[in-house]
Amino acid sequence: MSSQEGQHTPLLETTKQVKGNLGVTFAPTTAAAVAGLLALFAVFVRFDVAAFSDAHVNQYYMWYMHVAIMIFVGFGFLMTFLRHYSYSALGLNFFCSCLVMLAAIVAVGCAQQVVGKGKSVIDLDLPLLIDAAFCAGATMITFGAVLGKVSPTQLMLLLLIEVPLYACNQHIVAEMLGALDVGGSITIHAFGAYYGLAASLVMSPKGSGASHEKNGAIYSTDMTAMIGTIFLWMFWPSFNGALASAPAAAYQPQFLCIMNTNATLAGGVAVGSAANMSFLPVGAVTLGIIAGLLSTSGYRFLTPWLEERIGLRDTCGVHNLHGMPGLLGGLTAALVAFFMPVHNRAVMAHSTSQAMYQLAGVGATLVLAIIGGTIAGEAIAAGTPASLTLQAEEMYEDAMWWEEVESEKPEEDLATGARL
Amino acid sequence: MSSQEGQHTPLLETTKQVKGNLGVTFAPTTAAAVAGLLALFAVFVRFDVAAFSDAHVNQYYMWYMHVAIMIFVGFGFLMTFLRHYSYSALGLNFFCSCLVMLAAIVAVGCAQQVVGKGKSVIDLDLPLLIDAAFCAGATMITFGAVLGKVSPTQLMLLLLIEVPLYACNQHIVAEMLGALDVGGSITIHAFGAYYGLAASLVMSPKGSGASHEKNGAIYSTDMTAMIGTIFLWMFWPSFNGALASAPAAAYQPQFLCIMNTNATLAGGVAVGSAANMSFLPVGAVTLGIIAGLLSTSGYRFLTPWLEERIGLRDTCGVHNLHGMPGLLGGLTAALVAFFMPVHNRAVMAHSTSQAMYQLAGVGATLVLAIIGGTIAGEAIAAGTPASLTLQAEEMYEDAMWWEEVESEKPEEDLATGARL
Amino acid sequence: MSSQEGQHTPLLETTKQVKGNLGVTFAPTTAAAVAGLLALFAVFVRFDVAAFSDAHVNQYYMWYMHVAIMIFVGFGFLMTFLRHYSYSALGLNFFCSCLVMLAAIVAVGCAQQVVGKGKSVIDLDLPLLIDAAFCAGATMITFGAVLGKVSPTQLMLLLLIEVPLYACNQHIVAEMLGALDVGGSITIHAFGAYYGLAASLVMSPKGSGASHEKNGAIYSTDMTAMIGTIFLWMFWPSFNGALASAPAAAYQPQFLCIMNTNATLAGGVAVGSAANMSFLPVGAVTLGIIAGLLSTSGYRFLTPWLEERIGLRDTCGVHNLHGMPGLLGGLTAALVAFFMPVHNRAVMAHSTSQAMYQLAGVGATLVLAIIGGTIAGEAIAAGTPASLTLQAEEMYEDAMWWEEVESEKPEEDLATGARL
Repeated sequence: MSSQEGQHTPLLETTKQVKGNLGVTFAPTTAAAVAGLLALFAVFVRFDVAAFSDAHVNQYYMWYMHVAIMIFVGFGFLMTFLRHYSYSALGLNFFCSCLVMLAAIVAVGCAQQVVGKGKSVIDLDLPLLIDAAFCAGATMITFGAVLGKVSPTQLMLLLLIEVPLYACNQHIVAEMLGALDVGGSITIHAFGAYYGLAASLVMSPKGSGASHEKNGAIYSTDMTAMIGTIFLWMFWPSFNGALASAPAAAYQPQFLCIMNTNATLAGGVAVGSAANMSFLPVGAVTLGIIAGLLSTSGYRFLTPWLEERIGLRDTCGVHNLHGMPGLLGGLTAALVAFFMPVHNRAVMAHSTSQAMYQLAGVGATLVLAIIGGTIAGEAIAAGTPASLTLQAEEMYEDAMWWEEVESEKPEEDLATGARL
Repeated sequence: MSSQEGQHTPLLETTKQVKGNLGVTFAPTTAAAVAGLLALFAVFVRFDVAAFSDAHVNQYYMWYMHVAIMIFVGFGFLMTFLRHYSYSALGLNFFCSCLVMLAAIVAVGCAQQVVGKGKSVIDLDLPLLIDAAFCAGATMITFGAVLGKVSPTQLMLLLLIEVPLYACNQHIVAEMLGALDVGGSITIHAFGAYYGLAASLVMSPKGSGASHEKNGAIYSTDMTAMIGTIFLWMFWPSFNGALASAPAAAYQPQFLCIMNTNATLAGGVAVGSAANMSFLPVGAVTLGIIAGLLSTSGYRFLTPWLEERIGLRDTCGVHNLHGMPGLLGGLTAALVAFFMPVHNRAVMAHSTSQAMYQLAGVGATLVLAIIGGTIAGEAIAAGTPASLTLQAEEMYEDAMWWEEVESEKPEEDLATGARL
Repeated sequence: MSSQEGQHTPLLETTKQVKGNLGVTFAPTTAAAVAGLLALFAVFVRFDVAAFSDAHVNQYYMWYMHVAIMIFVGFGFLMTFLRHYSYSALGLNFFCSCLVMLAAIVAVGCAQQVVGKGKSVIDLDLPLLIDAAFCAGATMITFGAVLGKVSPTQLMLLLLIEVPLYACNQHIVAEMLGALDVGGSITIHAFGAYYGLAASLVMSPKGSGASHEKNGAIYSTDMTAMIGTIFLWMFWPSFNGALASAPAAAYQPQFLCIMNTNATLAGGVAVGSAANMSFLPVGAVTLGIIAGLLSTSGYRFLTPWLEERIGLRDTCGVHNLHGMPGLLGGLTAALVAFFMPVHNRAVMAHSTSQAMYQLAGVGATLVLAIIGGTIAGEAIAAGTPASLTLQAEEMYEDAMWWEEVESEKPEEDLATGARL
């Protein structure tokens, strides 16, 4: 829209008001979160001396970097597909992932080292940094479910609340139940997806779903989203293998993904739980095909049905890409544990009943994620003054939050923007 | 083009018809290819147990990832330069590269392990995965020659036929002739280019060449193409060094490329054959300059001449970027073998006559690529019903194959798209 | 702008003239530079035999690649934000970085090996290649200060003159003074920034500053710039750790950056000098917050003030992103050396007076950079014929230098380009 027209649409008027409110809630919330994290860092976090060795860096640094690429390039650009919300997708991915990683160093470090090992401080090394990046991955999946529909302040709070729940759930699934989940199908993908979907269910008003005029891509934003897709896809083996004691876990996801170009990312999700278990190449490829079919069917049939029936509005379709494939991954690990116990004895905590513990891990994750997401969503919605609550027509719109971005009238957008 | 105009150009009518035909040929061909590959995987392919060790992963994983970045980010975005065909370039790169990698695991694995070593199954390890990615690289070069001019089904068939020929040619050049080609100047670049050019010669109708109104870039698509160029360029040392027993082979390409910013990618191609042979830094830089001059002269003079004289339509100019620099690389290796035999004795299979075998490898590659590409192109063209054969005006156009992409009238495109 | 309008603005006329002049100065200057470098390579540079071992490649290759990603993807795309100058930003980044790396192999190699160790030839290994990429980083910072305001020939000369000065300054700071600067806060960031700012002060005419109508971003160019920002940010730990003898230096920058999303890149700069010294996680995070506040305040208040008062026109704000954070990094290292001498004894050249030498290194860098940049800028401006000197209205404009890019009238740009 040209600035010389000298007129503003009603939307733009609203914009100016809300934008002004960034200072009212976002800045103080950020300052409080950072101050709190600084205090926790000062008291509890120190560098692990052993982590300063060449061997430690050689073993972990590349994997950390690959996971970081997935979080910041992969998820960041993947979510730029919305045609009026690319800045926010990238900017909020960047801001929130950083904040979440700091919080996760404290929360996951506390669960693993203080609760798990009885230490009184948290030693920061590269595996903990990788775990913090995994936690950021879970929150970015959550972001995908509410993308465009919540304010930056609401998003920050929603994701910060998720961090301790994530650490708690991971402790339950991995330590208390001893379920296998090396690539995070259950504790990252399913947890992040169902937490976000529960929050979206209570925070997305009518009119904010698939029919919203700005809830869609144009040619150029689908291109930037492909940057995200390709980087996410390529580095998936690293995601699943980064913290595996046998890094050969990295192989299997690639075969899944390779086989699976319709819903290319679902394959990597589905193999996550079983990624350090033994099965054949043809099994990996078959699992990829199933995940791809499940995911594409979900986009085509289930998402519209869920929106119509229960009002579940899922901007990025995280239910298809992370929720269901995550459950499929959990189920696969249970089946592999049940039918191939001898081959996988070395990695299993329970000899004959591992499959049951795998299913228990899936169940615990679903319960914690859905209850947690519902309560967090309700609380944040209730705590937001009516004047700061986004109306449907203010959603999916960068102009609300970024200087020098102007809102466009939809007709003009279609006229000039359909292709470029 | 705006959707509210309520009118469609004739092109769009055609589009709708052809798009409907994706289901007629593309889906069943894909299903058949995948089913066949699954059966071959089930019978012949298993994970190599030795490849599950940390040492194996540490030695090869990073190199595999670098080559994967070149195939999926490098070639993928490089081919987005066409202003109406960016989706197809990225999407078909992704789809076909994955399918080709699966086929190459079987075909190259068969050539190396069954034919070469007399084994009865194919052990899948990271070097074989890297070889499969190299094969995908050769087919992506072929894609560049026919980019925009063939249907997705035709492309898939053309590249699937290329895979066993590639495996066969690599066996002849490397095993039977003992020619050096560690970075693939001959067996990847020259093979992929001349196979594609031969196919293009028989499959590109009149009017589908440089003068086609949609066969060109705009500002924004040249920007996304630069993403591909830069990633391809940066990781070239990894491409040339990934499977070198002396990984120092990785050095030399970088000097070539650095020297060679006009046709930045040609240098990496040209040093491929000799990348594990000894020569001086100044030699590498000089070779880069020669490759750059050759490549840019090719774009300026040879490509238009070839199109006018023999009707060779080469969308991406792969003859300049891969064909001629590949031959230059083959020739360079022969010269190095001839003039510096003592320094390179350790890597050469033949002591005094290595140069002759290098030239024989180049010759065999040219013969197999050109005959194979011609027959494959003729067969696919003959097997395509007239109703599914693309007319010149339907080429270089995403709207034929992607939902929600609309065809634009050229004048509008020029009016609004010249810059952004 | 549509080509069918059949009319040209006066700007376009000028464009055609100047574009023709690329052949007059750019081609011969390039040829002379390349010929000179080739001669120097032939006489002085050889491959280091020890660098051909697997161990050498395994130790350094990944780090080299990370630094290369920062230079070519990071700086390259970061500077595409100008809405009419994205081609030039990427193209000149690519061209000049390559040329500078070749020159730096000679200049830095000479300082380190000939002057420093008394050798008569330069042995090329991966650490020297990394050092050459660091030097390219310094020159890309300089490019940011003059971005859009100098011709390609002027830029090439400005950066080529910078290379020996950079090598000389690094020798003074690291060897003669023994100051710590493993991540280059002082010798890369501060040096590159103040050299560029000095040159910009003498080369930027009135009207070429923030108020220039083309000196700004649009939605799509800010998106491509984000590609650069994210890759630069992610790989910062590698930049600071690539040549550290204790690679654990790589940790600390990430915490800074993570904490520091407003001016995300400043944190990595500020920790550069002290990156191999010991301090606590909370210290790293606090330093990141300070750098972020310093940098964002600089953009908001200092840059406009400096432009108004002394006519300093700083296209990319390198003073805020590299200059001040670089000085902060130098100051931090001095403070750490002063207050924590015992913990850092292992890495310090001077036991009790290290802090003083750190400050001396900062001072020497400022003097050399500012005097060097001023003289180089004056000399290049004086040596450019009036007919080839860019007028303010010809700046920030790709159409001057690239075929098939047309200049746009600003109103049209605002009308169609505000969003896409």
